[in-house]
Amino acid sequence: MCASGSVTCVAFSSSEWPLSASFSNALCALLCLHSADIVQKANSGHPGAPMGMSPAAFVLFTKVLKFNPSNPKWAARDRFVLSNGHACSLLYSLLHLTGYKAWTLDVLKTFRQLDSIAAGHPENHFPGIEVSTGPLGQGISNAVGLAMAERHLAATYNKPGFDIVDNYTYVFCGDGCLQEGVSGEAASLAGHLGLGKLIVVYDDNHITIDGETHLSFTEDVLKRYESYGWHTLHVADGDNDVDAIEKALLEAKKVTDKPTMIKLTTTIGYGSAKQGTEGVHGSPLGAADIANVKTKFGLDPAQSFHIPAEVAAAFNHVEKGAALEQAWHELFHKYQAAHPTEAAEFQRRERRQLPADWEKALPHDYKPSGPALATRKTSGNTLNALANVMPELFGGSADLNPSTFTYLEKFKGFQKDSYEGRNVHFGVREHAMAAIMNGLAAYGMFIPFGSTFLNFLGYALGSFTLSALSGFQVLYIFTHDSIGLGEDGPTHQAVEKFMLCRETPHVLFLRPADGLETTAAYIAAIRHTHGPTLMALSRQNLPQNAGSSIEGALKGAYTLVDCAGKPDIIITATGSEVEIALTGAAKLTDLKVRVVSFPSWELFEKQTQEYKESVFTQGVPVLSVEAGTVMGWSRYAHASIGMTTFGASAPAPVLYKKFGITADNVAEKSIKLVEFHKTHPVAHLLQRPF
Amino acid sequence: MCASGSVTCVAFSSSEWPLSASFSNALCALLCLHSADIVQKANSGHPGAPMGMSPAAFVLFTKVLKFNPSNPKWAARDRFVLSNGHACSLLYSLLHLTGYKAWTLDVLKTFRQLDSIAAGHPENHFPGIEVSTGPLGQGISNAVGLAMAERHLAATYNKPGFDIVDNYTYVFCGDGCLQEGVSGEAASLAGHLGLGKLIVVYDDNHITIDGETHLSFTEDVLKRYESYGWHTLHVADGDNDVDAIEKALLEAKKVTDKPTMIKLTTTIGYGSAKQGTEGVHGSPLGAADIANVKTKFGLDPAQSFHIPAEVAAAFNHVEKGAALEQAWHELFHKYQAAHPTEAAEFQRRERRQLPADWEKALPHDYKPSGPALATRKTSGNTLNALANVMPELFGGSADLNPSTFTYLEKFKGFQKDSYEGRNVHFGVREHAMAAIMNGLAAYGMFIPFGSTFLNFLGYALGSFTLSALSGFQVLYIFTHDSIGLGEDGPTHQAVEKFMLCRETPHVLFLRPADGLETTAAYIAAIRHTHGPTLMALSRQNLPQNAGSSIEGALKGAYTLVDCAGKPDIIITATGSEVEIALTGAAKLTDLKVRVVSFPSWELFEKQTQEYKESVFTQGVPVLSVEAGTVMGWSRYAHASIGMTTFGASAPAPVLYKKFGITADNVAEKSIKLVEFHKTHPVAHLLQRPF
Repeated sequence: MCASGSVTCVAFSSSEWPLSASFSNALCALLCLHSADIVQKANSGHPGAPMGMSPAAFVLFTKVLKFNPSNPKWAARDRFVLSNGHACSLLYSLLHLTGYKAWTLDVLKTFRQLDSIAAGHPENHFPGIEVSTGPLGQGISNAVGLAMAERHLAATYNKPGFDIVDNYTYVFCGDGCLQEGVSGEAASLAGHLGLGKLIVVYDDNHITIDGETHLSFTEDVLKRYESYGWHTLHVADGDNDVDAIEKALLEAKKVTDKPTMIKLTTTIGYGSAKQGTEGVHGSPLGAADIANVKTKFGLDPAQSFHIPAEVAAAFNHVEKGAALEQAWHELFHKYQAAHPTEAAEFQRRERRQLPADWEKALPHDYKPSGPALATRKTSGNTLNALANVMPELFGGSADLNPSTFTYLEKFKGFQKDSYEGRNVHFGVREHAMAAIMNGLAAYGMFIPFGSTFLNFLGYALGSFTLSALSGFQVLYIFTHDSIGLGEDGPTHQAVEKFMLCRETPHVLFLRPADGLETTAAYIAAIRHTHGPTLMALSRQNLPQNAGSSIEGALKGAYTLVDCAGKPDIIITATGSEVEIALTGAAKLTDLKVRVVSFPSWELFEKQTQEYKESVFTQGVPVLSVEAGTVMGWSRYAHASIGMTTFGASAPAPVLYKKFGITADNVAEKSIKLVEFHKTHPVAHLLQRPF
Repeated sequence: MCASGSVTCVAFSSSEWPLSASFSNALCALLCLHSADIVQKANSGHPGAPMGMSPAAFVLFTKVLKFNPSNPKWAARDRFVLSNGHACSLLYSLLHLTGYKAWTLDVLKTFRQLDSIAAGHPENHFPGIEVSTGPLGQGISNAVGLAMAERHLAATYNKPGFDIVDNYTYVFCGDGCLQEGVSGEAASLAGHLGLGKLIVVYDDNHITIDGETHLSFTEDVLKRYESYGWHTLHVADGDNDVDAIEKALLEAKKVTDKPTMIKLTTTIGYGSAKQGTEGVHGSPLGAADIANVKTKFGLDPAQSFHIPAEVAAAFNHVEKGAALEQAWHELFHKYQAAHPTEAAEFQRRERRQLPADWEKALPHDYKPSGPALATRKTSGNTLNALANVMPELFGGSADLNPSTFTYLEKFKGFQKDSYEGRNVHFGVREHAMAAIMNGLAAYGMFIPFGSTFLNFLGYALGSFTLSALSGFQVLYIFTHDSIGLGEDGPTHQAVEKFMLCRETPHVLFLRPADGLETTAAYIAAIRHTHGPTLMALSRQNLPQNAGSSIEGALKGAYTLVDCAGKPDIIITATGSEVEIALTGAAKLTDLKVRVVSFPSWELFEKQTQEYKESVFTQGVPVLSVEAGTVMGWSRYAHASIGMTTFGASAPAPVLYKKFGITADNVAEKSIKLVEFHKTHPVAHLLQRPF
């Protein structure tokens, strides 16, 4: 950045490379101030990192990155991820300066205000932002997914002379992102996979919120990344040495068999009176200090958000971006002529159109007379059937393929010598698996899936929440979903995870009871395009229930067994407990009983009031049966059978008995509930005042 | 392990070191078979790792580990953690063979059966088991906490000539534990802190569930641990070379300024026909293969669970352990004479007794006329006041001290040159923070605390669930608990985390509304000795509410403002929304309104039915107000104001308005609710059939 005061803004055209040092400095200074001004205007935000990273951002966005501001979704663009999302004022400045229409100067002035696209942390819903960042470690891990996406599509669609898929993924991150375990998991996998087109610029600014990094972070970061199989570089003077930054980026691009980590040693808040301290991390500089910085860099301290025309022209990427995209379209048209089938499929995936008749590929022929099957098994069959007709299905397991049945039998493993493979061996890395799925979804053209035992959602929750918040269509195929897994015991048995999924916005949660409901679960998941789906699947075998139907399950809740006239009681259950509810109901020969299978609250909520009331009839008490926490069921049920403690280690049938989730207990409690409501009114749970 | 068939079991006394190679081999073979027999008997479990790790286990438990089987809780014992908990049949065999009374041969035969202490994965509730493991990566991370505990207590209580605290922490782990991000976070911190008495033995057996490690895990593990600042060693033949294993352990013990990672290359299921494959990981060997293994090692294939007397004697550690403990007690008695104050405090902490009058140290003098304060701030004051009288309070922040106010002002940072410090700089490592707290709690003599923003509970959930399952008294002091944090936006705003805490067994969840309720929260947390407490605290300032009381808050829910006679409506709220409920209620001049502050569901559930009904009077509709998901509130409320979506980025007051959590809306919805119930019966939510 600027070493001394005086700055000359010279006229500039995009062909004048290399820039003179003084001009580079002017741009850097501007960027830094721009970012600081934004934070100051909002009187909230993080100026330090944007200021320190400005030189690198300048080089990347004006000299290296392939993008078209007029079409933020251009398929062949390089991907840029600001993993240290709190530095977003820098990104927003760049999006404005390079020419994204949505990112006007007025928008920048609404930083952190309601309904502004200049949100407190970058949100993927807005132009030019690939993934939502802020929670540390996510962006860099998403980037591994973005880079995997590129490698897989390139291996799948590129043909000799037609590198239609050929982009890099760049990441900016800070110390915080590298301290988080999720990034370590993802980086280890990226090294294993040899993702050579992934380039990370690490802002080594020695400062965290608590103070200097020597308080908690003294490891040798580059050595660690080398141990993962990465190529590493160091730029010693990230504040000033734009040439070295450019050289490092170009060198990184040349190493295509390993991801690159560039350590960029910088001064946080460079130029501020508080530079190099945690004081500049998370609070505005204040008017006096901003004036001081501007004066120091030879700019007018009286002006804010001021962009000289020459500088605007220097950053503007509109023409160059349009030319880049145009060239790609020309290539693609030739590709289309030479390889029409591949081109059509590529475009179909780009448009997120589903292949014709995809639903027909699914198993529809389960019969009550057929064999009992675990829903993890029916899921495996369904996933494989779908994957055969939907190349966008791509994913794998966190080292539990033999248990979760998510291996796509007809396809190879995704490895550095077989990027065309569609089975990802994520390793025992649940958090990175989820973060990588988010990256794959963000790239576009993928419906990623990942599997593990349901309880290990706890490891992945940071990224799962972001799947939901980002509205990414990601399939969490999580098995061994309750005490029904038996002997592995309480460390492996989910108790509270069903409700956690149900209460998380945008999540479609499904707990199918048998084969047909599993098919329904996949149909719903493929239709649920703007959020993640989590399927909770059984380890144990379950019968094919009489009355089970795909159509019914797609309504979320439906009647499996009914009685004549108004029931005395409705017993509702999900997943593996439907069988128990049915057996319990059959014992209630003196009562009129309806049994409702309830695989998905979210699907049920979307039905008409009339349909809802046809399932849960007003005035009839409802008993819920589910091997998860009973908390939350008061929304639909007047009483519940379920878990109020953690599970235990024993064979599954023994555990069901221990925790009272049995047909006998269903019958007994049903009678009690009916008795109780002879003297207590039955609340109508589906009718609410607001 | 045994290289060839014939085995001679020679007589043995514990002084006969070194053992002859053949005798070592006999013991190893026995251990391996023992572990395999256990799994075979249960017809469930994981024989591979126990067999592969038997030689190392043999060396550690007979030659290195300091412990007394007759007193599993002896304070000065070395700690052993089986991080790859699925290998627990090995641990259970060791506990039996070394002489833990509870671990009889009959108990081993109940492996994975209901109520057996030989549970499917090790549970800390049972003798000889320090921490519950099974979810990978946890044990090794807990061990960092165990090792920190030792360093801190040694620095605090040891005096010249009196090393009363002086133990090592040993860990066995596999590839899976090292792939998990949480272990990377913890290992980086362990290296930073120079925890020289932490020794990890890594079972490098090349196999994961999906197949060979080359599918997903090809990093250079030792280089990675070196980058963290660890001392590393490699034993190339972990199957046979017991001398090399012993040498490595002794060498590791000598390096006291760095933790040590010993990579032990082994063959999974060594001796089995399926050795070296994933087939031996998670399923019993089968009778034929066990017979084959036994024959191979020169043992009688017809016998199971057979322990020759000589071998039993060789492992038996009862006398040696008693002598070790006796020697320590003698030292401690002398210490007691020389340093009575320290000894008394040490013993008080060992007994988990609280210091006299600890409650008096807490702030009790908040008044409605006093200043509005964020509960993160009142928490900071309370925590500091408590820490001054309770040396067992030890912890810190995941790099958010300036925001969460959990720095103990009168004490130093816990660093390698100041282990007496009580402020841990966890770094941006939420998951490791929680795992380390579990380790500190497991050591005993600590009430650990950790802080971050509430939403980042999602990063730590794997360990949080284990805090609960393990019944560890751990304080999660989590701030910025809702949309009230404002501009940082939805990535930072918890929506579903309150209910997640409430539905997790053993968790005490508290959301105090002001200073007095914060004091109550700490009282409840200190009293909640057998599970974690999570406090959700505000970023924004909150008034000191009229009617607020410590006594009331300790009942979980209590009336803040009441009306004469039976109310028309009860408005209940938690934390930062209590103020809004009060203001809303004040607008309802035409209704009789009661306002209930409801800081803790768990505390309320423990009250008498009479008390509960005095708060939530039968027949009166209840409106809940909380800036979290409304799901779950149907347990106590007939209607709810709260969140049904994720938050947004804007100043907090703007967000409260956007999401309808305002006094005006409280008033409006109260009227609606009262109107609604003029024609609908009011369900009595506190009276249930079962």
